[in-house]
Amino acid sequence: MIKDVPVEQFLAELASSSATPGGGSAAAIIGAQGAALVSMVCNLTIGKKKYADVEADMKAVLANSESVRERLTGIIQDDVRAFDKVMAAYGMAKESDAEKSARSDAIQDALKEATDVPLKCCHAAREVIDLAAVAAEKGNVNVISDAGVGVLAGYAALRSAALNVFTNARMITDKIFAEAKLKELEGLLSGAEGVTEKAYEVVKGKLS
Amino acid sequence: MIKDVPVEQFLAELASSSATPGGGSAAAIIGAQGAALVSMVCNLTIGKKKYADVEADMKAVLANSESVRERLTGIIQDDVRAFDKVMAAYGMAKESDAEKSARSDAIQDALKEATDVPLKCCHAAREVIDLAAVAAEKGNVNVISDAGVGVLAGYAALRSAALNVFTNARMITDKIFAEAKLKELEGLLSGAEGVTEKAYEVVKGKLS
Repeated sequence: MIKDVPVEQFLAELASSSATPGGGSAAAIIGAQGAALVSMVCNLTIGKKKYADVEADMKAVLANSESVRERLTGIIQDDVRAFDKVMAAYGMAKESDAEKSARSDAIQDALKEATDVPLKCCHAAREVIDLAAVAAEKGNVNVISDAGVGVLAGYAALRSAALNVFTNARMITDKIFAEAKLKELEGLLSGAEGVTEKAYEVVKGKLS
Repeated sequence: MIKDVPVEQFLAELASSSATPGGGSAAAIIGAQGAALVSMVCNLTIGKKKYADVEADMKAVLANSESVRERLTGIIQDDVRAFDKVMAAYGMAKESDAEKSARSDAIQDALKEATDVPLKCCHAAREVIDLAAVAAEKGNVNVISDAGVGVLAGYAALRSAALNVFTNARMITDKIFAEAKLKELEGLLSGAEGVTEKAYEVVKGKLS
């Protein structure tokens, strides 16, 4: 499992000519780093007298950021699995008409899964953005730059995973499925840049 | 060393109430992931007949992306070391005037280093952006989404590390030093968004 591999080795595997791990796993790790930084800001805010007013809010953010981090950590591997399934389907026999049909069905099935996995990553990444925005507003000012990194990581993860949704959705012949997924993605992307830039400015404002 | 820690454990350490590893190390890892993805695109382009025309360009990009990846991997730990040095300086004795003066000098020294380390990360991240833009233009179209993730990772790393430059530079009393560093940062940020968005559009265009 990639999550058990040392960071430096993961980076080497990412750089290698093997197609996995690729951008989908990287997106999940970037998003998970964003969620982790939100958690860190919460952990360094909760219990501090100066921040008693926002303690309940920070506890709620922390519960969510930890749940999102766990989900994103799972997606690191799910992405590899979905990609491998697509490759395996393309590798199926295609001599007889029955084989051709079975192969085509398997490819379409695999592509649907390979669309759903990065879309789940997009959902989680959007949550990271929204949670980081709260952390940037209310978190301990001594670690507020970490909330800023959190929101940027969430936004990069969202747009990165979106590329994998585009890649796979366009090859799906079930256009109703593909359009529904692209519409779902559009909803997640909508407003994300605004929330990100506003949170970044909030953080920068506290650093000047 | 953080680079030797498994990915999942790193994420848990990032989320914890310990201030290190924090956003500075996360920025370096995000940038290193971007560099690694650029390398992957190069590795899957070089040697392919269809891409013989860009082979020399891709080899040059790969040499640079691997060099940048190595630098960013080093910065993961440098960031922790620089932060610890600042904390150690703040922890120095401050009873006598001599102690106060020594402590103040040590803090200022440490803050300069804690400004230089994220600034190095910004330099490397800007290189990731520019290299990913070339990979997006010329790389193997089958893995072009990875070039897109690469450029987004580079841009997130640049802006993330910039927050740490802001954080530390503002506390430096040597204003000539601080202003020079902020000016250097401005140069790195300048045009980065444009290159990133253009490369992202190039990738999206190839996916439609």
